[in-house]
Amino acid sequence: MKDLETALDLGAVELRDRLAGGALSALDLVEACLARIAAREPEIGAWAWIDPDYAREQARRLDAHRASGRTLGPLHGLPVGLKDMIDTARIPTGNGCALDAGRVPARDAFVVERLRAAGALILGKTVTTELAFLHPGKTRNPHNPAHTPGGSSSGSAAAVADAMVPLALGTQTGGSVIRPAAFCGVTGFKPSFGAIPRRGVLMQSHSLDTVGVFAADPLGAALVAETLFGFDETDPASSLAPPPRLLDTARGTPPLPPVFAFVRPPGWDRADPDTHAAFAELTAALGDQVFALDLPPAFEEAAPQRAKINMAEMARHYYRYDRDGRDLLGAETRAAIDKGANMPARDYLAALDRPKVLNAALDEIFTRCDAILCPAAPGPAPEGLGTTGDPIFNGLWTLCGTPAVTVPILTAGNGLPMGVQLVGPRGGDARLLRSAQWLYDWAAGA
Amino acid sequence: MKDLETALDLGAVELRDRLAGGALSALDLVEACLARIAAREPEIGAWAWIDPDYAREQARRLDAHRASGRTLGPLHGLPVGLKDMIDTARIPTGNGCALDAGRVPARDAFVVERLRAAGALILGKTVTTELAFLHPGKTRNPHNPAHTPGGSSSGSAAAVADAMVPLALGTQTGGSVIRPAAFCGVTGFKPSFGAIPRRGVLMQSHSLDTVGVFAADPLGAALVAETLFGFDETDPASSLAPPPRLLDTARGTPPLPPVFAFVRPPGWDRADPDTHAAFAELTAALGDQVFALDLPPAFEEAAPQRAKINMAEMARHYYRYDRDGRDLLGAETRAAIDKGANMPARDYLAALDRPKVLNAALDEIFTRCDAILCPAAPGPAPEGLGTTGDPIFNGLWTLCGTPAVTVPILTAGNGLPMGVQLVGPRGGDARLLRSAQWLYDWAAGA
Repeated sequence: MKDLETALDLGAVELRDRLAGGALSALDLVEACLARIAAREPEIGAWAWIDPDYAREQARRLDAHRASGRTLGPLHGLPVGLKDMIDTARIPTGNGCALDAGRVPARDAFVVERLRAAGALILGKTVTTELAFLHPGKTRNPHNPAHTPGGSSSGSAAAVADAMVPLALGTQTGGSVIRPAAFCGVTGFKPSFGAIPRRGVLMQSHSLDTVGVFAADPLGAALVAETLFGFDETDPASSLAPPPRLLDTARGTPPLPPVFAFVRPPGWDRADPDTHAAFAELTAALGDQVFALDLPPAFEEAAPQRAKINMAEMARHYYRYDRDGRDLLGAETRAAIDKGANMPARDYLAALDRPKVLNAALDEIFTRCDAILCPAAPGPAPEGLGTTGDPIFNGLWTLCGTPAVTVPILTAGNGLPMGVQLVGPRGGDARLLRSAQWLYDWAAGA
Repeated sequence: MKDLETALDLGAVELRDRLAGGALSALDLVEACLARIAAREPEIGAWAWIDPDYAREQARRLDAHRASGRTLGPLHGLPVGLKDMIDTARIPTGNGCALDAGRVPARDAFVVERLRAAGALILGKTVTTELAFLHPGKTRNPHNPAHTPGGSSSGSAAAVADAMVPLALGTQTGGSVIRPAAFCGVTGFKPSFGAIPRRGVLMQSHSLDTVGVFAADPLGAALVAETLFGFDETDPASSLAPPPRLLDTARGTPPLPPVFAFVRPPGWDRADPDTHAAFAELTAALGDQVFALDLPPAFEEAAPQRAKINMAEMARHYYRYDRDGRDLLGAETRAAIDKGANMPARDYLAALDRPKVLNAALDEIFTRCDAILCPAAPGPAPEGLGTTGDPIFNGLWTLCGTPAVTVPILTAGNGLPMGVQLVGPRGGDARLLRSAQWLYDWAAGA
């Protein structure tokens, strides 16, 4: 058993290679995951649905496939957890909402089809906040169960952080990938808007919703994200652009050491002293590889503008929930729907135009650096399970559609992890992951 | 002079061929246009800007180019009129609005760049209603100056109808291409939404605005539209799909005689008796080539839903006009901006979803016919210049983004022309123009 627990401490790429080479069987790996879950799930509450027999059946089939000598997909045998608002055929998908309890989709989401085609093993569904918004689910932070894991992809972040599963999928509309990843001390990657088609994913805000991934390290995030990039005609945000080779690029050595623009985003002044101290130390250690940069004043309005888009579109897409079961919804969800329902179209349309202005400013910044470097959250995971923390440092990048990744290399005074968020230009996902892996390795060696 | 006036009675394709072969010079053709304009413009008022010397200078340059034996563009020497809300570099573009009087853009619109590259001659700017909405300009109907020419592409339709210019460009957000074309007795073609990029065209409603063309016959519309289809990254509606060969297809013989689905759209009951009588006769004459079809009830809501989108987006895009010069705006424009400013985002977003439902119904219909056939307007051009007539039969197709063409083959009891509108599936522009040319020839031969 010790060997298998050790296996779970490996990065996803190393696991994948061992699975492909036969040094590790999918069944042994899934048993290790199930054992870890059996031991820890009562305290962590990361899973919304899991069926050990279903997991073992997939593992046996994948092992038999490998034994037959046929071609293997890039994720062959790797278990993946799916945020429970990503549709899975014949597997309950409850959207974290009492109104959808027992809901069983007929068809896999685009990303689930891609995962299955790549040979991944669907381990189970992870806890989402209610309708992927702010009302918390049952999940606790693996580093300290009295603290929030963050949200809305709470279970995905916690499950990867607790070594219950090497990879997981989530979504971000405000800060729902980067924030929980940072709070739980794993790598979270939110790709460029539109890179991963959203068919079969609960739609909260079509202008913002972005599928993201969780892994121990940036290479693992690159491995799984690469299988998800693509085009689906039902998602107007997706494009026919050729998907980038994320893993090969992320594994490569940067031709020059990456240069980071250290940004203090709006809200910086109210951030935790731990954050101020950690970033002072980090930027000092990075030396010539980092320069400080002030964002143009237009970014001050990014958070409220993003919220307008989110709430207006949420009021549209969640109309059914409000109409059919308003009393069953959490207060945060109800309030946002109400705000959205009263939003004038003109304000909404004005907010939609904002990313153009912001991205023009960012385009110029990205000519001078490999990535923007900033905190992933104002501090470590707050104590208490009543909120999922503050997405203030995430929403502006979601609004801009820029790829973002949080690298788990900092620790707060109370021992909880903190993330360093790197942000790249739209479409620059591969190079961003390379910079992230460089930072991850640099911190490990420092 | 008689020869040249005769030239103006030719279709654009025949004119183009004579110009290319040297049987007609661009200068002779432009002189004929200018003579016609000199004689008729005081009564018709089709032009917002025209400079005979600028037109002659282009003609001389184009004739010299031809004489040099170099390759000719597909529109070489053909004069084109441009609705005065399509930007032209160094040429005034007033948007039909007092606030933009004397405005001179720095850059040609995408479509103007395409026209120039194709060898077209920019004859002048044609009158648009105020900001391409409902408040009329100075243009009169060439068939009877006491009647409206329709709007908002009033000058483009009237100029082509009065043989002042063989081709013109306009735009449609509700019924602004099809309606004036029908009222003036020319062919108007509104392509599939997104087919022609809108960079440099006044934006009223980005979800609806569509560039269209005017010509005597469908072949002429195909000739000029083919040069305009394409991709521009600044227009989110445009795509990298390969542009169709409109002219070759429209010139071809249909493998089978086209079959039309005769539709009585919402508003049919209130249409002019002339329209009822003409369509009874037309469908009887088409015999087996037409079958009657009722649109599903969902189409009853198409007009108000389209209006919501139009007004919400107009309130956003025309905010500046309302703020800077509300008193200078026509009552129709002011009222629509006010309605749009009070539109809840949720209603707007709900309206934006409507085309999906309607197009699902249309997709099924288009498996059974080449095109939907219906009136272009409730009747001939109404008397009076205070309104531009009713776009009731146009807005639903604009909302759906389906290509539409009006074929000038009917005459009302008062001698004014009426149009037969054909509608095809999205992306089926080429085949729709072939059906339209078939109908045009059939009517000429009948």
